[in-house]
Amino acid sequence: MPRYKLTIEYDGTPFVGWQIQAEGASVQGVLAEAVKRFAGEAAAVHGAGRTDAGVHATGQVAHVELTRDWRPDTVRDAMNAHLRPHPVAVLAAERAADDFHARFSAVGRRYVYRIIARRPDLALERDRAWRVLRPLDAQAMAQGAARLVGRHDFTTFRAVGCQAASPVKTLDRLEVETVPVEGPGMEVRVHAAARSFLHHQVRSMVGTLVKVGEGAWTPDDVTAALEAKDRTRCGPMAPAAGLYLAEVTY
Amino acid sequence: MPRYKLTIEYDGTPFVGWQIQAEGASVQGVLAEAVKRFAGEAAAVHGAGRTDAGVHATGQVAHVELTRDWRPDTVRDAMNAHLRPHPVAVLAAERAADDFHARFSAVGRRYVYRIIARRPDLALERDRAWRVLRPLDAQAMAQGAARLVGRHDFTTFRAVGCQAASPVKTLDRLEVETVPVEGPGMEVRVHAAARSFLHHQVRSMVGTLVKVGEGAWTPDDVTAALEAKDRTRCGPMAPAAGLYLAEVTY
Repeated sequence: MPRYKLTIEYDGTPFVGWQIQAEGASVQGVLAEAVKRFAGEAAAVHGAGRTDAGVHATGQVAHVELTRDWRPDTVRDAMNAHLRPHPVAVLAAERAADDFHARFSAVGRRYVYRIIARRPDLALERDRAWRVLRPLDAQAMAQGAARLVGRHDFTTFRAVGCQAASPVKTLDRLEVETVPVEGPGMEVRVHAAARSFLHHQVRSMVGTLVKVGEGAWTPDDVTAALEAKDRTRCGPMAPAAGLYLAEVTY
Repeated sequence: MPRYKLTIEYDGTPFVGWQIQAEGASVQGVLAEAVKRFAGEAAAVHGAGRTDAGVHATGQVAHVELTRDWRPDTVRDAMNAHLRPHPVAVLAAERAADDFHARFSAVGRRYVYRIIARRPDLALERDRAWRVLRPLDAQAMAQGAARLVGRHDFTTFRAVGCQAASPVKTLDRLEVETVPVEGPGMEVRVHAAARSFLHHQVRSMVGTLVKVGEGAWTPDDVTAALEAKDRTRCGPMAPAAGLYLAEVTY
């Protein structure tokens, strides 16, 4: 049966997360519904990353197998027509090999985390970034980030319920960027890339880096927290709303 | 009585517009309500620009007169605390002269219009930009825009119900910028600045420039439309969702 690779963008705010749950709308659920409406068949939509409630995507990848051999552009356009009530869009659809699996074939994931440091609440970027009150020292954050790059036991930065077989991961990239903003304050983006991440790893690392940016922690404290392999040594977890799954590579 | 100048950001999506209406939530209304809650008095909030339903602001300016002499930062923080359910934030509050009037003292207004040209629907930028299906020739748009800069009779680009005394305005700036996007397609921003604008002038000019960007009109057609001084010669009006009141100068 023809298999399709879908590249997907979504605003995670109204969803219980990527994965279908007993209650509430999920991204996976509205995508499966769109497939059903246009193709008339119930097909599972397999995603590369099971993003949590409130987490966004600019480049999530999923695959779906259909009985009929549709043109890929038809799959994209027809799904978008049926997705319209939801803030979810199929950016691209392409034919994939029969053994392509969005999750298991992936060799890299890239996330972006947006932090806006300013005193007023966010109006336009509400639910799209983490607002912190104090200005951030992006250079110190970059120094802290460098301590986490490489192959480590990331137990400190791992959710209690994380189901990964091992806490050892190789973090390929953790970079801190300052971007210009309209209005007061500053925006800092953290770029993270790895073959795969532990559950809550990016948000845990970002929360820790914000501690450094606020001057409460030094880069050495980041190293000490990593080496402790102890969840209680992690900084506060950054909220879901600032996180974007930006790219999945194969 | 102490007068305060407020700089305000909002997401216009849930509002009937800036101005208080008989029905529906307005930006002016939720600001007046926030003043009432923190200061305990009913004070009118006067805005520089009466943005339409769905139009956003990153730099709207308003003034309000209060009986008590509050610290400006207290006005900002207290209003934001009461505004929290709404996507409206006071970016700055400052004391202003007794004769300062947000609307009548203004000597310049700057708007930004965001257009995203791509086939898939917008998910993250839904309600924040105008999605057009075809790629745009930004260079041709810039040539068309140049035809509108200067002092002209803008009758062609004026809403039927516009209440301005004269259709003659001086357009100081109309520039077309291409900005990088995550994902497919392209984003074009139109920057417009003038002492004041006619009702729907920016959206009418942008709709006309998109005609040029799509190749349907030439820059000469823009000149001809302007010189016709005829509303029916205007391109289609660009939707509210792409428009941002970015700055008011005094």
